[in-house]
Amino acid sequence: MKKVDLVGVGMTVFGKHPDKTGRDLLLEAVRETVSHVDMGIDIKKDVKALFIGYFTPELYEHQGHIGALAAEWLGLSGIPAFRTESACASSSAAFATGYWAVASGMYDLVMVGGVEKMTGLNTAGVTDALSIAADNIYELPTGITFPGLFALMAQEYFEKYHVTWDDLQAIPIKNHHNGALNPRAQFRSEILDIAEKTGNKIGVKFKDEMTFLKSPSNPAVTYPIRLFDCCPISDGAAVAVLASGDISKNFTDKPLHVEGIGLGTDTITLSGRKDLTSSKAIVNAARAAYQMAGVKPEEIDTAEVHDCFTINEAIITEDLGFFGRGEGLKAAKEGRTALSGDKPVNTDGGLKCKGHPVGATGIGMIHEIWLQLRGEAGERQVKGNPEIGLTCNVGGSNASAVVLIFKR
Amino acid sequence: MKKVDLVGVGMTVFGKHPDKTGRDLLLEAVRETVSHVDMGIDIKKDVKALFIGYFTPELYEHQGHIGALAAEWLGLSGIPAFRTESACASSSAAFATGYWAVASGMYDLVMVGGVEKMTGLNTAGVTDALSIAADNIYELPTGITFPGLFALMAQEYFEKYHVTWDDLQAIPIKNHHNGALNPRAQFRSEILDIAEKTGNKIGVKFKDEMTFLKSPSNPAVTYPIRLFDCCPISDGAAVAVLASGDISKNFTDKPLHVEGIGLGTDTITLSGRKDLTSSKAIVNAARAAYQMAGVKPEEIDTAEVHDCFTINEAIITEDLGFFGRGEGLKAAKEGRTALSGDKPVNTDGGLKCKGHPVGATGIGMIHEIWLQLRGEAGERQVKGNPEIGLTCNVGGSNASAVVLIFKR
Repeated sequence: MKKVDLVGVGMTVFGKHPDKTGRDLLLEAVRETVSHVDMGIDIKKDVKALFIGYFTPELYEHQGHIGALAAEWLGLSGIPAFRTESACASSSAAFATGYWAVASGMYDLVMVGGVEKMTGLNTAGVTDALSIAADNIYELPTGITFPGLFALMAQEYFEKYHVTWDDLQAIPIKNHHNGALNPRAQFRSEILDIAEKTGNKIGVKFKDEMTFLKSPSNPAVTYPIRLFDCCPISDGAAVAVLASGDISKNFTDKPLHVEGIGLGTDTITLSGRKDLTSSKAIVNAARAAYQMAGVKPEEIDTAEVHDCFTINEAIITEDLGFFGRGEGLKAAKEGRTALSGDKPVNTDGGLKCKGHPVGATGIGMIHEIWLQLRGEAGERQVKGNPEIGLTCNVGGSNASAVVLIFKR
Repeated sequence: MKKVDLVGVGMTVFGKHPDKTGRDLLLEAVRETVSHVDMGIDIKKDVKALFIGYFTPELYEHQGHIGALAAEWLGLSGIPAFRTESACASSSAAFATGYWAVASGMYDLVMVGGVEKMTGLNTAGVTDALSIAADNIYELPTGITFPGLFALMAQEYFEKYHVTWDDLQAIPIKNHHNGALNPRAQFRSEILDIAEKTGNKIGVKFKDEMTFLKSPSNPAVTYPIRLFDCCPISDGAAVAVLASGDISKNFTDKPLHVEGIGLGTDTITLSGRKDLTSSKAIVNAARAAYQMAGVKPEEIDTAEVHDCFTINEAIITEDLGFFGRGEGLKAAKEGRTALSGDKPVNTDGGLKCKGHPVGATGIGMIHEIWLQLRGEAGERQVKGNPEIGLTCNVGGSNASAVVLIFKR
């Protein structure tokens, strides 16, 4: 198996882009990616194949056939290209496809990306589009949608580990703190607006957060989830370039090596699971990635994990083995996952604050790991020259997971 | 790069399955696939990953997240699984993903498949669902749908090569002849019904075909395309098992070796192309597959090609290099692509007669190559012990293509 290196990654600002289509966003992310390849890249000459994750273009843009469309828009018509879909892990599936294509020796360099243009629909439309990541026959007829599915997980976690919604707020407060330092985060600017309008300081100076979070500005969605326990609806795109270890030095002296890749699934229905506070998808994906990389959870210097709802950051950090069962939320409360903690998690603000343009999220996480391991994360740079980073991107109610481990 | 072998393939009957969902169809195809693995397979033990092509589950079944869903329904929750989408080439994209995953050495055996459950929508709904394989911004606003796009190709082909609609009928007549010998073909039974009702013999005894094809039973759709120039709307699924060459002997003494794999794209918009009688996607995919296999077009013993509209069989057989420019239709008229010809094409009836459950079609083609190269095609067996078979599955208006070459 050939070694595979990450030689560049770029992303749009995540947020509302009312004047841009999915293809516009993708093009913008590619432009940034190209600008981030240290020694330059000629995409027409160098890119041998293109894999794009986009969860629901059919419903957001009445568009399918995203691979060929993206190739045309990037001026790459002719090359192999197709779309991958794994709900909210769609671009990590694109990454996996590109990884295998390069690792097999078939192509020496591929581009992988993801995009989602969500804000063209109203909230009901987006809720419906997202709902198809759950089971249309056995779950949706009950009327449940994603906040409800994650609320069930939160309820079980609270009961099992004797914690409360107040405890849970350690996660969004941390992630808004991190996201306020991230110029690509959706809630960097939006939170400033909120702060200005309401006088609350969340994301600005970090006092009075709980006052704000308990106020009517943070209404209940479904018990125990309130608005700020949910990631926002976002537009955005993110793109990465993967090269064979044989040629990556032609593009950068500072590649990230893809040391571990693991995928897994769990039942798509929550009713199929015995324990809602853990996911077999994540556990399996993590086990495979750690084994391949020869790395233990305690060796991970910084991680990006899929906090689509705040409870999920606690669950994932436990499933990844960073903390024991029931210890993930405790670790957040103790500041261990903060920028200054011993295991910084979601240094870019996470889905919660950075935004969650579904198909773009997986590669968006990799963008942060790229910055952190190269020491380019600016104000939010993790101290101590982090060497090993991990991403955990999941689909649906943690029914799909992709875990990636990068080393510089 | 590890060698990859096809060790089993199965499919449902293509056609109308009003009582079955997409997941039901997929399960049925897996059952048949398992029964076709000569030495047996324990899918829970042996299958390391699952890749499924399904073009538009969002619109047909209000369902996404097909990979995890399929894994759950097959009793395989836990393993890596995701969906691929490349319009009508979606399951060939799944095949490519599985191929690379095995060729890289990551997994020793994977299952790849495809499914589409189309007949739950009415004709207008299906036409709309299919239309998103074209460009929603630059093509669909003109009111064009797929019969229109292929009609433009036919018009250009007719003008360029001085042929007529009458000439074109050599293709559907041949494919209905072949399909009448295929128990899995949609129009085997439906044509018998038509024959019974109308007294016409198409698909039964093969006389008076032109009388039938020129009758009001074959109405105009869009010039020069009439109803029997279009493949039907179908439900169906098809599944294949790919194993590393290191272990394929544990499953069969008669694997098919995957010798060549090529992918390509062309502009998704027809307006982006200079010549509508050829596709860069197909030409590029074929070139890559031939080069990898070390095989020339004249060495292909039998091929399955994507005759979604009859004109496309002529175009593809030329783009594959089987015949010179403008010679593809002539070859069909001369019987060269018939079962008894020197280059049998679409021996299973093609999309035209076998049916076209979009996401299942690519693996459905492989099913026929499997039968033909193993000498198991019964009444429609190609003579002379064919050794090398090819599939060419395309997406949209030939904007994506996957070409595969198999040897026994």
